[in-house]
Amino acid sequence: MAEFQLIRDHFLRIGHGRSDVALGIGDDCALLRVPEGHELAVSIDTLAEGTHFLPGCDPEGLGHKSLAVNLSDLAAMGAEPAWVTLALTLPGQDDAWLGAFSRGFAALAGQHRIALVGGDTTSGPLSITVQVHGFVPAGGAVRRGGAQAGDLVCVTGTLGDAGLALRRLLAGEPVDDVLGARLDRPTPRLSAGLALRDTATAMIDISDGLVADLGHILDASGVGAEIELARLPLSDAVSAQIQGHDDWDLPLASGDDYELCFTWPQARISELPPLIRLAGCALTPIGLIHEKTGLRCLRSDGADWRGARGGYEHFSV
Amino acid sequence: MAEFQLIRDHFLRIGHGRSDVALGIGDDCALLRVPEGHELAVSIDTLAEGTHFLPGCDPEGLGHKSLAVNLSDLAAMGAEPAWVTLALTLPGQDDAWLGAFSRGFAALAGQHRIALVGGDTTSGPLSITVQVHGFVPAGGAVRRGGAQAGDLVCVTGTLGDAGLALRRLLAGEPVDDVLGARLDRPTPRLSAGLALRDTATAMIDISDGLVADLGHILDASGVGAEIELARLPLSDAVSAQIQGHDDWDLPLASGDDYELCFTWPQARISELPPLIRLAGCALTPIGLIHEKTGLRCLRSDGADWRGARGGYEHFSV
Repeated sequence: MAEFQLIRDHFLRIGHGRSDVALGIGDDCALLRVPEGHELAVSIDTLAEGTHFLPGCDPEGLGHKSLAVNLSDLAAMGAEPAWVTLALTLPGQDDAWLGAFSRGFAALAGQHRIALVGGDTTSGPLSITVQVHGFVPAGGAVRRGGAQAGDLVCVTGTLGDAGLALRRLLAGEPVDDVLGARLDRPTPRLSAGLALRDTATAMIDISDGLVADLGHILDASGVGAEIELARLPLSDAVSAQIQGHDDWDLPLASGDDYELCFTWPQARISELPPLIRLAGCALTPIGLIHEKTGLRCLRSDGADWRGARGGYEHFSV
Repeated sequence: MAEFQLIRDHFLRIGHGRSDVALGIGDDCALLRVPEGHELAVSIDTLAEGTHFLPGCDPEGLGHKSLAVNLSDLAAMGAEPAWVTLALTLPGQDDAWLGAFSRGFAALAGQHRIALVGGDTTSGPLSITVQVHGFVPAGGAVRRGGAQAGDLVCVTGTLGDAGLALRRLLAGEPVDDVLGARLDRPTPRLSAGLALRDTATAMIDISDGLVADLGHILDASGVGAEIELARLPLSDAVSAQIQGHDDWDLPLASGDDYELCFTWPQARISELPPLIRLAGCALTPIGLIHEKTGLRCLRSDGADWRGARGGYEHFSV
């Protein structure tokens, strides 16, 4: 357990003084207090080398990302993060690697005052399992199933950046720092989740691409949607790529964006712009929820975009 | 995620109707309610093939064991189990294996009405990460640091059975069902943990052997102990092995027992026997806590047993 001591050392000043941690690491269990009137939101995810990240990738970025993708799930419920546990499988003792990983993990945890309350290190092929724990007022979480016909479909930030970075990386092309950070150091939209919580009717984080994840909202809510490609919020890099190649799959179907997709009552559209400062990112309406199931992605000429390789699962017939 | 659907199918009837699960699997997070006046106890552990279990081992037993070893941590705090999350890394799609694993996992969960509230399946070398969640009245958990000079040192059940089973297995010798189950299907001492909670001054589960784990109690409490080998609770199989080979390391230093070691005020010794029925296992005093640090293991002739290979870390000098 020398490895876990090294991880703990990076956390010593973080989450310290959280009065909701009655007992931290060091006994058989941690003992934790959920504030009165609140529910506990939990999510667990594994990142495995070769499946979720490239072998030899920067350990500090990986520390950040392995926590960020889990915090993104808390953001999607409108939950406030509190505690994290970490189960790390490592191919061997490498203090430099572990130090860098812990720095990236602890820096992001520190930004949100998240306490590390449990963990385990095991020897084996590199794999990282993280469970996050957050609070949400009882009954106040935003689920996937609340979207109603007439609601706006909206997204945070910009779409397709991580997908473009990954594509360039795999092709051996240069990736500038800003675009690279969108892949390696995604920002979990925790502030946005909190700002949107009381009014959003449904919410999800975009980890598998907008079409797939919006599809989960549509399925859970028993509704359909139309989105307008011209309204998708895009960075200059993704815009240029689409202008050159007409490749709308980039913002619609590439993964790892970790933005939020949410639905919002149309009558309350004027409340969105004032929330942008609180959310810390763009909040962009891109379409509408309809009663008729299925998802249509409309080009500016009114034609359907059905995907470069033939069609998305959630298109209506 | 077809694999995870298969796991869920085995859980459909389990933990159903737990009113403390506001939202189970299927959204970005589960939403959970800790009962008022209680703390949440959590513990996370990974079992990896080759490190924690032998390649090719029975998947149903493995499903049981991967949950049991985590529940053992809840037992050691005196916590009542409620929820579990499961992150499973699998080398490939094998429905028969996964069905058997899920059966073993779900059967033990069902015994204790534990709900599966989250999880993830990933492709890679076989590895199982489980996080358990339980409740304990606020301030009522039994920690490692409360042992005081004069307290009795006690253990549940019998010691060394799993170690003997593993030794015979590795030597290619036959292992009878009763002994084999002590290795493959340990019983987490949850009832004992609850029965002992209000009076035990310190408690830990024995996963790395009595000497190592009692050592953690002594370190955390700043005390020492003397135990008498003649008082160790032993099965007939382990007794016979010791009579033949004078091998006290078996009950003292082999792992995987998953019994509880606890300390108990000497003035309340008469309260132990009536608790045995509630605990569902033997509760055996084996020694005494002393002010002087270090751990002595005394043979019946009064001589120190210092381990077959030379001496335990926690012997006093």
